[in-house]
Amino acid sequence: MEESHGLLIVLSGPSGAGKGTLCRELLCQMPDLRYSVSMTTRSPRPGEVEGVHYYFRTRNEFESMLASNELLESAEFCDNYYGTPIFAVEQAIQAGLDVILEIEIQGALQIKKRFPQGIFTFIVPPSLDVLSERIHKRGTETEEVIQKRLATAIQELEYVSEYDYVVINDEVPVAVNKLKSILIAEKCRVKRKPFVFKGESR
Amino acid sequence: MEESHGLLIVLSGPSGAGKGTLCRELLCQMPDLRYSVSMTTRSPRPGEVEGVHYYFRTRNEFESMLASNELLESAEFCDNYYGTPIFAVEQAIQAGLDVILEIEIQGALQIKKRFPQGIFTFIVPPSLDVLSERIHKRGTETEEVIQKRLATAIQELEYVSEYDYVVINDEVPVAVNKLKSILIAEKCRVKRKPFVFKGESR
Repeated sequence: MEESHGLLIVLSGPSGAGKGTLCRELLCQMPDLRYSVSMTTRSPRPGEVEGVHYYFRTRNEFESMLASNELLESAEFCDNYYGTPIFAVEQAIQAGLDVILEIEIQGALQIKKRFPQGIFTFIVPPSLDVLSERIHKRGTETEEVIQKRLATAIQELEYVSEYDYVVINDEVPVAVNKLKSILIAEKCRVKRKPFVFKGESR
Repeated sequence: MEESHGLLIVLSGPSGAGKGTLCRELLCQMPDLRYSVSMTTRSPRPGEVEGVHYYFRTRNEFESMLASNELLESAEFCDNYYGTPIFAVEQAIQAGLDVILEIEIQGALQIKKRFPQGIFTFIVPPSLDVLSERIHKRGTETEEVIQKRLATAIQELEYVSEYDYVVINDEVPVAVNKLKSILIAEKCRVKRKPFVFKGESR
């Protein structure tokens, strides 16, 4: 069996599902897993390090990368571009490291078009009640905003059919274990690698 | 998320790969996993229990089940039929239990035609040297028979492309962990179940 390339696992799903928590937990538990660093045109905040928190680029540089298809996905928020550069993901994967990427649904669908061999995982809260509870607990939003976010989350659930896996984030350790299992299982998939049997060529 | 049916996992691959060991180990570690009991026309040996070791049937009964397509696979050895009855697998799966089945390659390919939603896992030894060692250790066969079996094993490796997963049986605990991960991951596959979000219908 040949040593295989790393895999790209994309965690996505409605906001409030707990993607961020699961992503951090996986990175803690799996030392060979790399976080995909985003690229942005916004200015670095104090303490932010190039290549760790973001790749910081000028608008011109970003647009030139966009034009030459060097981003897996991109979006514009508050007059700044954000995106996922291909080079970093490819570098890690070719070195045999797995890469994790946490992203909202539209970004995930963009990535799927460019990199269908990624593992697309939809993270969902166990119920709308739990989702509502989680958003309320943050205490940062008005009731109207919360109701809008809940309505959006329900709509977003439709996108589950675009994904390979769905993981219910009820208890974090259980969900983390499922994500680890997905990575282990995907490495065993026949379609992922040419099978070479040691000694076959003798 | 709706409670889903159980899954059928098929362990197959060249003889000497260690399918039997992995199957027994999984059954020990996973109390909700059921072993698929075969049906045969041979007479029960002392101590063999109907429905535990085999389902014992007459030749007429077996042939009538064959004719009405009630077997997932079947073969004839030494004038006796052996096969996998569908009823037992279906019963367990519909009760939400996973079923494991250990079988040689031709049998697995028969099952795949009848039950493509099974998880078809190809078990291989880490190398031909290890395979050769394992066969020699049994000490029951002549050198000529051993060489024939090795040649057959090499040919049989071609069939890996018919399977969903390939697991190298190098260290048993590692291989068992991979098989468990495959089961956990398959339960998260979007295509395996209609997604129902609790509270969605409110």
